[in-house]
Amino acid sequence: MPTENLPVADPYSSRLGNQWEIAPRVDPVLWAPGANGPLSESQRQTFENWGYYPFPQLISTDRAQSLLAEAKYLQQSLDPNLDYVISEPNHQEIRSIFRVHEDNPRFEEVCRDEQIVGIARQILGSDVYLHQSRINFKPGFRGKEFFWHSDFETWHVEDGMPRMRAVSISLSLTENNAYNGPLMLVRGSHLSYVRCVGETPEEHFRSSLKKQEFGVPNREALRLLVEQGEIVAPTGGPGSAVMFDCNTMHASVSNLSPYPRTNLFLVFNSVENRLEEPFGGTPPRPRFLSYRP
Amino acid sequence: MPTENLPVADPYSSRLGNQWEIAPRVDPVLWAPGANGPLSESQRQTFENWGYYPFPQLISTDRAQSLLAEAKYLQQSLDPNLDYVISEPNHQEIRSIFRVHEDNPRFEEVCRDEQIVGIARQILGSDVYLHQSRINFKPGFRGKEFFWHSDFETWHVEDGMPRMRAVSISLSLTENNAYNGPLMLVRGSHLSYVRCVGETPEEHFRSSLKKQEFGVPNREALRLLVEQGEIVAPTGGPGSAVMFDCNTMHASVSNLSPYPRTNLFLVFNSVENRLEEPFGGTPPRPRFLSYRP
Repeated sequence: MPTENLPVADPYSSRLGNQWEIAPRVDPVLWAPGANGPLSESQRQTFENWGYYPFPQLISTDRAQSLLAEAKYLQQSLDPNLDYVISEPNHQEIRSIFRVHEDNPRFEEVCRDEQIVGIARQILGSDVYLHQSRINFKPGFRGKEFFWHSDFETWHVEDGMPRMRAVSISLSLTENNAYNGPLMLVRGSHLSYVRCVGETPEEHFRSSLKKQEFGVPNREALRLLVEQGEIVAPTGGPGSAVMFDCNTMHASVSNLSPYPRTNLFLVFNSVENRLEEPFGGTPPRPRFLSYRP
Repeated sequence: MPTENLPVADPYSSRLGNQWEIAPRVDPVLWAPGANGPLSESQRQTFENWGYYPFPQLISTDRAQSLLAEAKYLQQSLDPNLDYVISEPNHQEIRSIFRVHEDNPRFEEVCRDEQIVGIARQILGSDVYLHQSRINFKPGFRGKEFFWHSDFETWHVEDGMPRMRAVSISLSLTENNAYNGPLMLVRGSHLSYVRCVGETPEEHFRSSLKKQEFGVPNREALRLLVEQGEIVAPTGGPGSAVMFDCNTMHASVSNLSPYPRTNLFLVFNSVENRLEEPFGGTPPRPRFLSYRP
Protein backbone atom coordinates (compact mmCIF):
# COMPACT_ATOMS: atom_id res chain seq x y z
CA MET A 1 0.00 0.00 0.00
CA PRO A 2 1.61 3.32 -1.00
CA THR A 3 2.30 5.34 2.10
CA GLU A 4 1.09 8.58 0.55
CA ASN A 5 -2.46 7.30 0.82
CA LEU A 6 -2.23 6.73 4.56
CA PRO A 7 -3.70 9.53 6.66
CA VAL A 8 -0.87 11.70 7.95
CA ALA A 9 -1.21 13.36 11.33
CA ASP A 10 -1.42 17.16 11.06
CA PRO A 11 1.68 18.55 12.82
CA TYR A 12 -0.20 21.77 13.52
CA SER A 13 -3.54 20.46 14.74
CA SER A 14 -5.21 22.81 17.23
CA ARG A 15 -8.56 23.50 18.96
CA LEU A 16 -9.24 19.79 19.33
CA GLY A 17 -10.31 19.68 22.95
CA ASN A 18 -9.34 20.75 26.42
CA GLN A 19 -5.60 20.19 26.11
CA TRP A 20 -3.04 22.81 25.13
CA GLU A 21 0.48 21.87 24.12
CA ILE A 22 3.68 23.54 22.98
CA ALA A 23 4.81 21.52 19.95
CA PRO A 24 8.04 22.03 18.00
CA ARG A 25 7.89 23.81 14.65
CA VAL A 26 8.55 21.23 11.92
CA ASP A 27 9.23 23.75 9.14
CA PRO A 28 12.29 25.88 8.41
CA VAL A 29 12.13 29.64 8.99
CA LEU A 30 14.36 30.44 6.01
CA TRP A 31 13.22 28.22 3.15
CA ALA A 32 16.27 28.88 0.96
CA PRO A 33 19.08 29.86 3.31
CA GLY A 34 21.54 30.99 0.63
CA ALA A 35 19.04 32.84 -1.56
CA ASN A 36 19.98 36.20 -3.01
CA GLY A 37 17.76 39.21 -2.52
CA PRO A 38 17.48 42.49 -0.64
CA LEU A 39 18.36 41.01 2.78
CA SER A 40 21.93 40.52 3.95
CA GLU A 41 23.07 37.27 5.50
CA SER A 42 23.09 38.92 8.92
CA GLN A 43 19.52 40.20 8.48
CA ARG A 44 18.33 36.73 7.50
CA GLN A 45 20.07 35.13 10.45
CA THR A 46 18.50 37.63 12.83
CA PHE A 47 15.08 36.88 11.38
CA GLU A 48 15.70 33.15 11.68
CA ASN A 49 16.71 33.45 15.34
CA TRP A 50 14.22 36.07 16.52
CA GLY A 51 11.21 35.39 14.31
CA TYR A 52 11.04 39.08 13.35
CA TYR A 53 13.18 41.80 11.85
CA PRO A 54 12.68 45.56 12.35
CA PHE A 55 13.47 47.87 9.39
CA PRO A 56 14.18 51.45 10.51
CA GLN A 57 13.14 52.67 7.02
CA LEU A 58 11.61 50.21 4.56
CA ILE A 59 9.96 52.89 2.41
CA SER A 60 10.62 56.64 2.43
CA THR A 61 8.93 58.93 4.94
CA ASP A 62 7.32 60.85 2.07
CA ARG A 63 5.85 57.72 0.57
CA ALA A 64 4.54 56.58 3.97
CA GLN A 65 2.89 59.95 4.51
CA SER A 66 1.30 59.88 1.10
CA LEU A 67 -0.05 56.39 1.83
CA LEU A 68 -1.35 57.65 5.17
CA ALA A 69 -3.30 60.39 3.40
CA GLU A 70 -4.77 57.78 1.06
CA ALA A 71 -5.63 55.53 4.01
CA LYS A 72 -7.44 58.38 5.74
CA TYR A 73 -9.35 59.10 2.56
CA LEU A 74 -10.49 55.47 2.39
CA GLN A 75 -11.44 55.54 6.08
CA GLN A 76 -13.66 58.57 5.44
CA SER A 77 -15.15 57.45 2.16
CA LEU A 78 -15.69 53.69 2.36
CA ASP A 79 -19.02 52.26 3.47
CA PRO A 80 -18.46 50.79 6.97
CA ASN A 81 -20.95 48.07 6.13
CA LEU A 82 -18.81 46.53 3.37
CA ASP A 83 -17.77 43.01 4.37
CA TYR A 84 -14.04 43.79 4.07
CA VAL A 85 -14.33 46.90 6.24
CA ILE A 86 -14.23 46.37 10.02
CA SER A 87 -15.37 48.98 12.52
CA GLU A 88 -14.59 49.39 16.23
CA PRO A 89 -16.70 47.37 18.68
CA ASN A 90 -19.63 49.64 19.63
CA HIS A 91 -18.60 52.28 17.07
CA GLN A 92 -19.12 52.89 13.41
CA GLU A 93 -15.55 54.17 13.07
CA ILE A 94 -13.51 52.10 10.62
CA ARG A 95 -10.71 50.16 12.26
CA SER A 96 -9.46 47.90 9.45
CA ILE A 97 -9.77 47.84 5.68
CA PHE A 98 -8.89 44.54 3.99
CA ARG A 99 -7.80 43.76 0.40
CA VAL A 100 -6.55 47.31 -0.07
CA HIS A 101 -4.36 46.13 -2.95
CA GLU A 102 -7.33 45.04 -5.02
CA ASP A 103 -8.91 48.28 -5.98
CA ASN A 104 -6.58 51.02 -4.83
CA PRO A 105 -3.68 51.78 -7.21
CA ARG A 106 -1.42 53.32 -4.55
CA PHE A 107 -1.68 50.36 -2.22
CA GLU A 108 -1.43 47.93 -5.12
CA GLU A 109 1.87 49.59 -6.05
CA VAL A 110 3.33 49.02 -2.55
CA CYS A 111 2.20 45.42 -2.56
CA ARG A 112 4.05 44.90 -5.87
CA ASP A 113 7.14 46.85 -4.77
CA GLU A 114 10.04 44.77 -5.99
CA GLN A 115 12.09 45.35 -2.83
CA ILE A 116 9.27 44.29 -0.50
CA VAL A 117 8.20 41.28 -2.57
CA GLY A 118 11.87 40.41 -3.03
CA ILE A 119 12.32 40.16 0.75
CA ALA A 120 9.36 37.79 1.00
CA ARG A 121 10.70 35.64 -1.85
CA GLN A 122 14.12 35.50 -0.24
CA ILE A 123 12.69 34.33 3.09
CA LEU A 124 10.20 31.85 1.65
CA GLY A 125 12.48 30.47 -1.09
CA SER A 126 9.91 30.62 -3.88
CA ASP A 127 7.55 32.91 -5.70
CA VAL A 128 4.96 34.43 -3.40
CA TYR A 129 1.46 35.87 -3.56
CA LEU A 130 -0.47 38.19 -1.29
CA HIS A 131 -2.46 36.14 1.22
CA GLN A 132 -3.88 39.23 2.93
CA SER A 133 -3.53 43.02 2.84
CA ARG A 134 -4.99 45.33 5.41
CA ILE A 135 -4.80 48.86 6.78
CA ASN A 136 -5.10 48.94 10.58
CA PHE A 137 -6.18 52.16 12.26
CA LYS A 138 -5.49 52.49 15.96
CA PRO A 139 -6.93 55.87 16.87
CA GLY A 140 -5.54 57.96 19.73
CA PHE A 141 -7.21 57.54 23.17
CA ARG A 142 -9.47 54.66 22.04
CA GLY A 143 -7.53 52.18 19.87
CA LYS A 144 -8.20 48.76 21.36
CA GLU A 145 -5.79 46.08 22.53
CA PHE A 146 -5.25 42.71 20.84
CA PHE A 147 -4.35 39.69 22.93
CA TRP A 148 -1.45 37.37 22.09
CA HIS A 149 -1.87 35.08 19.10
CA SER A 150 -0.02 33.31 16.32
CA ASP A 151 -1.51 34.26 12.96
CA PHE A 152 -0.50 30.87 11.58
CA GLU A 153 -2.68 29.04 14.08
CA THR A 154 -5.74 30.81 12.67
CA TRP A 155 -4.60 30.60 9.06
CA HIS A 156 -4.02 26.86 9.45
CA VAL A 157 -7.20 25.99 11.32
CA GLU A 158 -9.62 28.43 9.69
CA ASP A 159 -8.03 29.02 6.25
CA GLY A 160 -6.23 25.76 5.40
CA MET A 161 -2.67 27.13 5.17
CA PRO A 162 -0.64 23.91 5.30
CA ARG A 163 2.84 24.96 6.50
CA MET A 164 4.66 27.81 8.19
CA ARG A 165 5.78 29.36 4.92
CA ALA A 166 4.30 32.84 5.05
CA VAL A 167 5.70 36.13 6.24
CA SER A 168 4.03 39.34 7.42
CA ILE A 169 5.21 42.90 7.04
CA SER A 170 3.71 45.61 9.21
CA LEU A 171 4.59 48.93 7.60
CA SER A 172 4.18 52.06 9.75
CA LEU A 173 2.36 54.91 8.06
CA THR A 174 2.46 57.00 11.27
CA GLU A 175 5.00 57.04 14.04
CA ASN A 176 5.01 53.86 16.07
CA ASN A 177 6.12 54.75 19.59
CA ALA A 178 6.11 53.12 23.01
CA TYR A 179 2.78 54.74 23.93
CA ASN A 180 0.49 54.40 20.92
CA GLY A 181 -0.11 50.67 21.21
CA PRO A 182 2.84 49.29 19.24
CA LEU A 183 3.14 45.72 17.99
CA MET A 184 4.67 43.53 20.72
CA LEU A 185 6.34 40.26 19.74
CA VAL A 186 7.79 37.36 21.72
CA ARG A 187 11.33 36.82 20.49
CA GLY A 188 11.91 33.20 19.48
CA SER A 189 8.26 32.18 19.79
CA HIS A 190 8.10 31.28 16.08
CA LEU A 191 10.00 28.07 16.85
CA SER A 192 7.16 26.69 18.99
CA TYR A 193 3.60 25.94 17.98
CA VAL A 194 0.98 26.40 20.67
CA ARG A 195 -2.01 24.11 20.18
CA CYS A 196 -5.02 25.96 21.52
CA VAL A 197 -8.01 24.72 23.46
CA GLY A 198 -11.58 24.64 22.15
CA GLU A 199 -13.51 24.33 18.93
CA THR A 200 -14.11 27.02 16.31
CA PRO A 201 -17.67 28.22 15.94
CA GLU A 202 -18.93 28.81 12.38
CA GLU A 203 -18.46 32.34 11.07
CA HIS A 204 -16.02 32.92 13.92
CA PHE A 205 -14.23 35.54 11.79
CA ARG A 206 -17.10 38.01 12.16
CA SER A 207 -16.40 38.43 15.85
CA SER A 208 -12.70 37.47 15.93
CA LEU A 209 -11.70 40.47 13.83
CA LYS A 210 -12.95 42.66 16.64
CA LYS A 211 -12.07 40.49 19.62
CA GLN A 212 -10.56 37.03 19.42
CA GLU A 213 -12.06 34.34 21.64
CA PHE A 214 -10.92 31.11 19.99
CA GLY A 215 -7.39 30.26 18.92
CA VAL A 216 -6.22 32.12 22.02
CA PRO A 217 -3.07 30.56 23.47
CA ASN A 218 -3.14 29.29 27.01
CA ARG A 219 -1.54 31.63 29.57
CA GLU A 220 0.86 29.00 30.87
CA ALA A 221 2.08 28.43 27.30
CA LEU A 222 2.60 32.18 26.85
CA ARG A 223 4.46 32.41 30.12
CA LEU A 224 6.84 29.67 28.99
CA LEU A 225 7.44 31.34 25.62
CA VAL A 226 8.16 34.70 27.25
CA GLU A 227 10.53 33.06 29.73
CA GLN A 228 12.45 31.44 26.86
CA GLY A 229 12.45 34.64 24.83
CA GLU A 230 11.56 38.21 25.61
CA ILE A 231 8.81 40.71 24.79
CA VAL A 232 9.94 43.37 22.32
CA ALA A 233 8.13 46.32 20.75
CA PRO A 234 10.13 47.84 17.89
CA THR A 235 9.41 51.52 17.33
CA GLY A 236 10.06 53.78 14.37
CA GLY A 237 8.85 56.64 12.25
CA PRO A 238 6.62 56.61 9.17
CA GLY A 239 8.14 54.17 6.66
CA SER A 240 9.65 51.87 9.28
CA ALA A 241 8.46 48.27 9.32
CA VAL A 242 8.51 45.03 11.25
CA MET A 243 8.68 41.79 9.30
CA PHE A 244 7.65 38.73 11.26
CA ASP A 245 7.20 35.01 10.75
CA CYS A 246 3.62 33.76 10.41
CA ASN A 247 3.99 31.86 13.70
CA THR A 248 5.54 34.59 15.88
CA MET A 249 3.39 35.28 18.92
CA HIS A 250 2.29 38.91 18.95
CA ALA A 251 -0.14 41.30 20.65
CA SER A 252 -0.66 44.99 21.20
CA VAL A 253 -2.03 47.10 24.03
CA SER A 254 -4.56 49.86 23.65
CA ASN A 255 -3.57 53.30 22.47
CA LEU A 256 -4.11 55.77 25.33
CA SER A 257 -1.87 58.40 23.73
CA PRO A 258 -3.25 61.20 21.55
CA TYR A 259 -1.29 59.83 18.57
CA PRO A 260 -3.03 57.52 16.12
CA ARG A 261 -1.12 54.48 14.93
CA THR A 262 -1.86 53.46 11.36
CA ASN A 263 -0.13 50.50 9.72
CA LEU A 264 -0.29 48.71 6.40
CA PHE A 265 -0.18 44.98 7.03
CA LEU A 266 0.88 42.65 4.19
CA VAL A 267 1.07 38.86 4.31
CA PHE A 268 2.99 37.01 1.63
CA ASN A 269 2.51 33.27 1.23
CA SER A 270 4.67 30.89 -0.82
CA VAL A 271 3.07 29.67 -4.05
CA GLU A 272 4.13 26.21 -2.83
CA ASN A 273 1.99 26.65 0.29
CA ARG A 274 -1.40 27.35 -1.30
CA LEU A 275 -4.46 27.01 0.85
CA GLU A 276 -6.26 23.68 1.20
CA GLU A 277 -9.47 22.87 3.04
CA PRO A 278 -9.36 24.47 6.52
CA PHE A 279 -7.74 22.03 8.97
CA GLY A 280 -10.37 22.81 11.61
CA GLY A 281 -13.21 21.51 9.45
CA THR A 282 -15.15 24.79 9.17
CA PRO A 283 -15.92 26.36 5.74
CA PRO A 284 -13.14 28.56 4.31
CA ARG A 285 -13.23 32.20 5.40
CA PRO A 286 -13.95 34.93 2.85
CA ARG A 287 -11.49 35.77 0.12
CA PHE A 288 -10.70 39.22 1.57
CA LEU A 289 -9.22 37.49 4.63
CA SER A 290 -7.37 34.70 2.88
CA TYR A 291 -6.91 34.99 -0.84
CA ARG A 292 -7.15 31.79 -2.91
CA PRO A 293 -5.51 32.48 -6.28
CA MET B 1 -18.10 94.63 54.61
CA PRO B 2 -15.10 92.35 55.32
CA THR B 3 -14.01 90.69 52.11
CA GLU B 4 -13.51 87.31 53.79
CA ASN B 5 -17.26 86.96 54.03
CA LEU B 6 -17.81 87.40 50.30
CA PRO B 7 -18.20 84.18 48.37
CA VAL B 8 -14.89 83.35 46.70
CA ALA B 9 -14.90 81.56 43.35
CA ASP B 10 -13.41 78.06 43.58
CA PRO B 11 -10.24 78.13 41.43
CA TYR B 12 -10.61 74.39 40.86
CA SER B 13 -14.30 74.09 40.08
CA SER B 14 -15.06 71.18 37.74
CA ARG B 15 -17.95 69.05 36.42
CA LEU B 16 -20.21 72.07 36.23
CA GLY B 17 -21.65 71.65 32.76
CA ASN B 18 -20.76 70.97 29.16
CA GLN B 19 -17.61 73.10 29.02
CA TRP B 20 -14.09 71.89 29.64
CA GLU B 21 -11.22 74.28 30.24
CA ILE B 22 -7.51 74.24 30.95
CA ALA B 23 -7.01 76.61 33.89
CA PRO B 24 -3.68 77.61 35.42
CA ARG B 25 -2.63 76.07 38.72
CA VAL B 26 -2.87 78.73 41.41
CA ASP B 27 -0.82 76.85 44.03
CA PRO B 28 2.91 76.30 44.34
CA VAL B 29 4.35 72.83 43.68
CA LEU B 30 7.04 73.15 46.35
CA TRP B 31 5.39 74.74 49.38
CA ALA B 32 8.66 75.53 51.18
CA PRO B 33 11.31 75.81 48.49
CA GLY B 34 14.31 75.91 50.79
CA ALA B 35 13.16 73.23 53.23
CA ASN B 36 15.63 70.67 54.48
CA GLY B 37 14.90 66.99 54.17
CA PRO B 38 15.86 63.83 52.26
CA LEU B 39 15.60 65.47 48.80
CA SER B 40 18.44 67.41 47.23
CA GLU B 41 17.86 70.80 45.64
CA SER B 42 18.19 69.22 42.20
CA GLN B 43 15.60 66.54 43.02
CA ARG B 44 13.15 69.17 44.25
CA GLN B 45 13.65 71.28 41.13
CA THR B 46 13.06 68.29 38.90
CA PHE B 47 9.86 67.52 40.77
CA GLU B 48 8.76 71.13 40.50
CA ASN B 49 9.35 71.20 36.73
CA TRP B 50 8.13 67.72 35.79
CA GLY B 51 5.40 67.08 38.34
CA TYR B 52 6.98 63.72 39.22
CA TYR B 53 10.26 62.24 40.38
CA PRO B 54 11.40 58.64 39.85
CA PHE B 55 13.44 56.99 42.63
CA PRO B 56 15.51 54.04 41.33
CA GLN B 57 15.52 52.59 44.87
CA LEU B 58 13.38 54.20 47.59
CA ILE B 59 13.33 51.13 49.83
CA SER B 60 15.56 48.04 49.64
CA THR B 61 14.75 45.18 47.28
CA ASP B 62 14.49 42.83 50.27
CA ARG B 63 11.99 45.05 52.02
CA ALA B 64 9.93 45.40 48.84
CA GLN B 65 9.87 41.65 48.40
CA SER B 66 8.83 41.10 51.98
CA LEU B 67 6.00 43.63 51.51
CA LEU B 68 5.01 41.84 48.31
CA ALA B 69 4.67 38.58 50.24
CA GLU B 70 2.49 40.34 52.80
CA ALA B 71 0.39 41.93 50.03
CA LYS B 72 -0.19 38.51 48.45
CA TYR B 73 -1.20 37.12 51.82
CA LEU B 74 -3.77 39.90 52.23
CA GLN B 75 -5.04 39.31 48.68
CA GLN B 76 -5.60 35.65 49.50
CA SER B 77 -7.02 36.08 52.95
CA LEU B 78 -9.18 39.23 52.92
CA ASP B 79 -12.89 39.02 52.26
CA PRO B 80 -13.45 40.49 48.77
CA ASN B 81 -16.78 41.88 49.97
CA LEU B 82 -15.22 44.28 52.48
CA ASP B 83 -15.93 47.87 51.45
CA TYR B 84 -12.24 48.81 51.30
CA VAL B 85 -11.39 45.83 49.09
CA ILE B 86 -11.98 46.24 45.33
CA SER B 87 -12.17 43.32 42.92
CA GLU B 88 -11.72 43.20 39.13
CA PRO B 89 -14.78 43.98 37.01
CA ASN B 90 -16.49 40.63 36.33
CA HIS B 91 -14.13 38.80 38.70
CA GLN B 92 -13.90 38.12 42.38
CA GLU B 93 -10.13 38.56 42.25
CA ILE B 94 -8.92 41.38 44.50
CA ARG B 95 -7.45 44.31 42.59
CA SER B 96 -7.00 46.95 45.28
CA ILE B 97 -6.85 46.98 49.07
CA PHE B 98 -7.30 50.39 50.74
CA ARG B 99 -6.26 51.66 54.19
CA VAL B 100 -3.52 49.03 54.42
CA HIS B 101 -1.75 51.11 57.04
CA GLU B 102 -4.64 50.86 59.47
CA ASP B 103 -4.53 47.27 60.53
CA ASN B 104 -1.37 45.80 59.04
CA PRO B 105 1.82 46.45 61.03
CA ARG B 106 4.20 45.96 58.09
CA PHE B 107 2.40 48.46 55.88
CA GLU B 108 1.91 50.83 58.79
CA GLU B 109 5.67 50.80 59.28
CA VAL B 110 6.33 51.86 55.65
CA CYS B 111 3.75 54.61 55.91
CA ARG B 112 5.55 55.97 58.97
CA ASP B 113 9.04 55.52 57.49
CA GLU B 114 10.88 58.71 58.38
CA GLN B 115 12.57 58.97 55.00
CA ILE B 116 9.30 58.65 53.05
CA VAL B 117 7.30 60.93 55.31
CA GLY B 118 10.24 63.36 55.34
CA ILE B 119 10.09 63.66 51.55
CA ALA B 120 6.38 64.50 51.71
CA ARG B 121 6.99 67.08 54.45
CA GLN B 122 9.78 68.66 52.46
CA ILE B 123 7.59 69.01 49.34
CA LEU B 124 4.46 70.18 51.14
CA GLY B 125 6.20 72.49 53.61
CA SER B 126 4.31 71.33 56.70
CA ASP B 127 3.43 68.29 58.72
CA VAL B 128 1.51 65.72 56.70
CA TYR B 129 -0.97 62.90 57.23
CA LEU B 130 -1.95 59.91 55.12
CA HIS B 131 -4.92 60.81 52.96
CA GLN B 132 -5.04 57.37 51.35
CA SER B 133 -3.05 54.12 51.28
CA ARG B 134 -3.66 51.35 48.83
CA ILE B 135 -2.12 48.20 47.36
CA ASN B 136 -2.80 47.89 43.62
CA PHE B 137 -2.55 44.48 42.01
CA LYS B 138 -2.24 44.38 38.24
CA PRO B 139 -2.14 40.69 37.42
CA GLY B 140 -0.34 39.32 34.37
CA PHE B 141 -2.42 38.89 31.17
CA ARG B 142 -5.55 40.51 32.61
CA GLY B 143 -4.65 43.65 34.60
CA LYS B 144 -6.91 46.39 33.29
CA GLU B 145 -6.07 49.82 31.92
CA PHE B 146 -6.86 53.13 33.62
CA PHE B 147 -7.61 56.20 31.51
CA TRP B 148 -5.94 59.57 32.07
CA HIS B 149 -6.96 61.52 35.14
CA SER B 150 -5.75 64.01 37.73
CA ASP B 151 -6.28 62.61 41.23
CA PHE B 152 -6.70 66.12 42.58
CA GLU B 153 -9.73 66.77 40.37
CA THR B 154 -11.51 63.88 42.11
CA TRP B 155 -10.15 64.68 45.57
CA HIS B 156 -11.32 68.28 45.22
CA VAL B 157 -14.76 67.62 43.76
CA GLU B 158 -15.64 64.40 45.61
CA ASP B 159 -13.57 64.66 48.81
CA GLY B 160 -13.29 68.39 49.53
CA MET B 161 -9.49 68.73 49.28
CA PRO B 162 -9.09 72.51 49.00
CA ARG B 163 -5.69 73.05 47.38
CA MET B 164 -3.02 71.23 45.41
CA ARG B 165 -0.97 70.43 48.49
CA ALA B 166 -0.78 66.63 48.43
CA VAL B 167 1.78 64.25 46.99
CA SER B 168 1.54 60.60 45.94
CA ILE B 169 4.20 57.93 46.08
CA SER B 170 3.78 54.76 44.04
CA LEU B 171 6.21 52.21 45.44
CA SER B 172 6.94 49.15 43.27
CA LEU B 173 6.77 45.84 45.07
CA THR B 174 7.37 43.92 41.81
CA GLU B 175 9.35 44.90 38.77
CA ASN B 176 7.72 47.72 36.83
CA ASN B 177 8.69 47.29 33.19
CA ALA B 178 7.57 48.66 29.83
CA TYR B 179 5.20 45.74 29.27
CA ASN B 180 3.35 45.14 32.53
CA GLY B 181 1.17 48.22 32.42
CA PRO B 182 3.43 50.80 34.09
CA LEU B 183 2.28 54.18 35.37
CA MET B 184 2.38 56.73 32.55
CA LEU B 185 2.54 60.44 33.40
CA VAL B 186 2.35 63.62 31.34
CA ARG B 187 5.41 65.67 32.16
CA GLY B 188 4.47 69.22 33.19
CA SER B 189 0.74 68.53 33.34
CA HIS B 190 0.64 69.37 37.07
CA LEU B 191 0.84 73.07 36.15
CA SER B 192 -2.56 73.02 34.42
CA TYR B 193 -5.93 72.16 35.86
CA VAL B 194 -8.40 70.53 33.50
CA ARG B 195 -12.00 71.30 34.39
CA CYS B 196 -14.02 68.28 33.36
CA VAL B 197 -17.46 68.06 31.83
CA GLY B 198 -20.52 66.64 33.58
CA GLU B 199 -22.00 66.14 37.02
CA THR B 200 -21.05 63.53 39.61
CA PRO B 201 -23.68 60.92 40.38
CA GLU B 202 -24.13 59.94 44.04
CA GLU B 203 -22.01 57.01 45.20
CA HIS B 204 -19.91 57.47 42.06
CA PHE B 205 -16.95 55.94 43.90
CA ARG B 206 -18.47 52.47 43.81
CA SER B 207 -18.07 52.26 40.04
CA SER B 208 -15.19 54.75 39.54
CA LEU B 209 -12.75 52.54 41.44
CA LYS B 210 -13.25 49.94 38.73
CA LYS B 211 -13.77 52.20 35.72
CA GLN B 212 -13.89 55.98 35.84
CA GLU B 213 -16.67 57.68 33.88
CA PHE B 214 -16.86 61.14 35.47
CA GLY B 215 -13.94 63.47 36.12
CA VAL B 216 -12.47 62.22 32.85
CA PRO B 217 -10.52 64.95 31.08
CA ASN B 218 -11.55 65.96 27.60
CA ARG B 219 -9.41 64.49 24.81
CA GLU B 220 -8.57 67.85 23.31
CA ALA B 221 -7.30 68.99 26.72
CA LEU B 222 -5.15 65.88 27.01
CA ARG B 223 -3.78 66.38 23.52
CA LEU B 224 -2.72 69.92 24.45
CA LEU B 225 -1.05 68.77 27.68
CA VAL B 226 0.86 66.02 25.88
CA GLU B 227 1.97 68.47 23.18
CA GLN B 228 3.30 70.84 25.85
CA GLY B 229 4.94 68.01 27.78
CA GLU B 230 5.63 64.38 27.01
CA ILE B 231 4.34 60.97 28.08
CA VAL B 232 6.80 59.14 30.32
CA ALA B 233 6.67 55.75 32.03
CA PRO B 234 9.45 55.32 34.59
CA THR B 235 10.48 51.70 35.13
CA GLY B 236 12.40 50.04 37.94
CA GLY B 237 12.81 47.00 40.11
CA PRO B 238 11.17 46.15 43.43
CA GLY B 239 11.77 49.07 45.81
CA SER B 240 11.81 51.71 43.08
CA ALA B 241 9.16 54.43 43.28
CA VAL B 242 7.58 57.32 41.46
CA MET B 243 6.54 60.36 43.46
CA PHE B 244 4.05 62.63 41.72
CA ASP B 245 2.09 65.77 42.37
CA CYS B 246 -1.61 65.36 43.16
CA ASN B 247 -2.51 67.13 39.90
CA THR B 248 -0.18 65.29 37.49
CA MET B 249 -2.17 63.65 34.70
CA HIS B 250 -1.55 59.89 34.71
CA ALA B 251 -2.88 56.64 33.24
CA SER B 252 -1.80 53.07 32.65
CA VAL B 253 -2.44 50.52 29.94
CA SER B 254 -3.46 46.95 30.55
CA ASN B 255 -0.94 44.30 31.52
CA LEU B 256 -0.68 41.77 28.67
CA SER B 257 2.65 40.43 29.93
CA PRO B 258 2.90 37.38 32.18
CA TYR B 259 4.40 39.52 34.94
CA PRO B 260 2.15 40.93 37.66
CA ARG B 261 2.66 44.54 38.68
CA THR B 262 1.98 45.22 42.34
CA ASN B 263 2.44 48.67 43.85
CA LEU B 264 1.91 50.32 47.20
CA PHE B 265 0.30 53.71 46.68
CA LEU B 266 0.56 56.35 49.43
CA VAL B 267 -0.94 59.83 49.40
CA PHE B 268 0.27 62.41 51.86
CA ASN B 269 -1.73 65.57 52.43
CA SER B 270 -0.60 68.71 54.25
CA VAL B 271 -2.17 69.20 57.69
CA GLU B 272 -2.88 72.74 56.43
CA ASN B 273 -4.95 71.33 53.60
CA ARG B 274 -7.50 69.30 55.57
CA LEU B 275 -10.63 68.16 53.79
CA GLU B 276 -13.74 70.37 53.77
CA GLU B 277 -17.16 69.65 52.33
CA PRO B 278 -16.77 68.16 48.81
CA PHE B 279 -16.67 71.00 46.26
CA GLY B 280 -18.99 69.08 43.93
CA GLY B 281 -21.81 69.08 46.47
CA THR B 282 -22.11 65.29 46.89
CA PRO B 283 -21.72 63.63 50.33
CA PRO B 284 -18.11 62.89 51.35
CA ARG B 285 -16.73 59.55 50.18
CA PRO B 286 -15.88 56.86 52.72
CA ARG B 287 -12.98 57.25 55.11
CA PHE B 288 -10.96 54.44 53.50
CA LEU B 289 -10.75 56.58 50.33
CA SER B 290 -10.13 59.93 51.92
CA TYR B 291 -9.15 59.99 55.54
CA ARG B 292 -10.51 62.81 57.73
CA PRO B 293 -8.35 62.99 60.86
